[in-house]
Amino acid sequence: MPFDPAAARWLQRVEARLESALPPANDSPERLHAAMRHAVLGGGKRLRPMLVYAAGAATGADESLCDAPAAAVELVHAYSLVHDDLPAMDDDALRRGRPTVHVAFDEATAILAGDALQALAFEVLADAPADAALRVAWLQSLARAAGAPGMCGGQALDIDATGRQLQVVQLERLHALKTGALIRAAVRMGGLAGGADAGKLARLDDYASALGLAFQIRDDILDVEGDSAQLGKTAGKDQAQEKSTYPALLGMARSKALLAELAEKTKAALGPLGDEAGALRRLAEFAVARAS
Amino acid sequence: MPFDPAAARWLQRVEARLESALPPANDSPERLHAAMRHAVLGGGKRLRPMLVYAAGAATGADESLCDAPAAAVELVHAYSLVHDDLPAMDDDALRRGRPTVHVAFDEATAILAGDALQALAFEVLADAPADAALRVAWLQSLARAAGAPGMCGGQALDIDATGRQLQVVQLERLHALKTGALIRAAVRMGGLAGGADAGKLARLDDYASALGLAFQIRDDILDVEGDSAQLGKTAGKDQAQEKSTYPALLGMARSKALLAELAEKTKAALGPLGDEAGALRRLAEFAVARAS
Repeated sequence: MPFDPAAARWLQRVEARLESALPPANDSPERLHAAMRHAVLGGGKRLRPMLVYAAGAATGADESLCDAPAAAVELVHAYSLVHDDLPAMDDDALRRGRPTVHVAFDEATAILAGDALQALAFEVLADAPADAALRVAWLQSLARAAGAPGMCGGQALDIDATGRQLQVVQLERLHALKTGALIRAAVRMGGLAGGADAGKLARLDDYASALGLAFQIRDDILDVEGDSAQLGKTAGKDQAQEKSTYPALLGMARSKALLAELAEKTKAALGPLGDEAGALRRLAEFAVARAS
Repeated sequence: MPFDPAAARWLQRVEARLESALPPANDSPERLHAAMRHAVLGGGKRLRPMLVYAAGAATGADESLCDAPAAAVELVHAYSLVHDDLPAMDDDALRRGRPTVHVAFDEATAILAGDALQALAFEVLADAPADAALRVAWLQSLARAAGAPGMCGGQALDIDATGRQLQVVQLERLHALKTGALIRAAVRMGGLAGGADAGKLARLDDYASALGLAFQIRDDILDVEGDSAQLGKTAGKDQAQEKSTYPALLGMARSKALLAELAEKTKAALGPLGDEAGALRRLAEFAVARAS
């Protein structure tokens, strides 16, 4: 994701923090540790960590202060993928071209690895080299975004919706919880690291809400128009699984118009933030234009 | 568990805090919320919350300050039972005489409800009416105890050990992680609420380590000698599942001697703490003598 001159450095920072947070693979219990590392260190866009750093840059945060929230939000994202891939959930055997955790290990280990990764996310935040008040503010944001009022609630709505057609407003709520909540928490944690006031945090939240939905609509469009090889996953899967999508509910033309509208919203929200918000702007452009 | 004059009041306090922390069953997504409530509000000894309050009393903590860590540690315990009962783990259909979450609901909902309960535990601590520094100290204790260095690691060792005979030192480590870590976190969080210094925290930790193991050995003994009706579960299950137990490894007489030794250790650890540690002493007596 070469969206920003700083991105390569941020990527290196978060990879290093993840590597040091994860338990060594040759320490007992080895199988659990290996499964946790498989889940986290398998690549991926690291979109959420990038959002933490970019929001930190937009609000003048010290880069090193963003390492812990960047790693923590990725740990939550990684654990959610492990559990989503389980046979009782989406039953996926491949993720980013590699076997999913329950396939590479076993189901019990996948459940436990996900559980341990969630705990690790909160441990990383609680241990961060930052004021206690800042750590608590991060922890509040991430815990709410990860739980029933956020990601878990969205996943429950998604399960509930499988096989039936949702209305647009229902689909929007599903995505706002399932993927939007964690994206908003990433941006908010970066803003908190920069000491943003309530007004700035509200602008960042408007940006993140629009970005989260734009990212999802782009996903839906790519599932119809995209190339399986470039996507790294099978195109046309949403339709096969009878999932409600924006193209299915609104048609392709209106979906693309909505995507453009959301892109404008992200720009408007960042308007008064000046050049420091450049990375956030470029991340939004990438999210809207990406081919995979 | 009428081990202490204050216990009924503590039980009421933690039940009220749990009730207010859990999302209402008739809010969307209803099925997820109902599953979370089923997992938490189904009774149980509430041993870990009682340990928080008792350690708080031993160190002069305000009782109300103990509500959040008491609820949080029980939420972690409850989520771990939901995941342990899953078909891929212990595959249990009954818990405390009621259907387990994946039986009463479904597997996907059970996985998600466990995940959401873990997030809620950290949210309750992060939102607690306490100094930020105290909240961070609680969060550090609970996150480590819940994750790979604690409960999840112990569960992984347990899975790994099924069907083969462990040595006593391995069995001790398994229990120290699987059940001991959370019991120690409960006692530590109560001590932290009371502002205990490092020396007092170390004594409390000695107490909690001995208590955790004593509790497990008593469990093993009851599985052999206990009455299924009184236990509320099937006696003899450990042997049927080829689990390593203290009676199997040491024999019954030596297991009981070890239990008595651990009971002495809990008393010795609390020695200098005075009358305020009465509830902790009575909890240890209960753990050693209980019939269910």
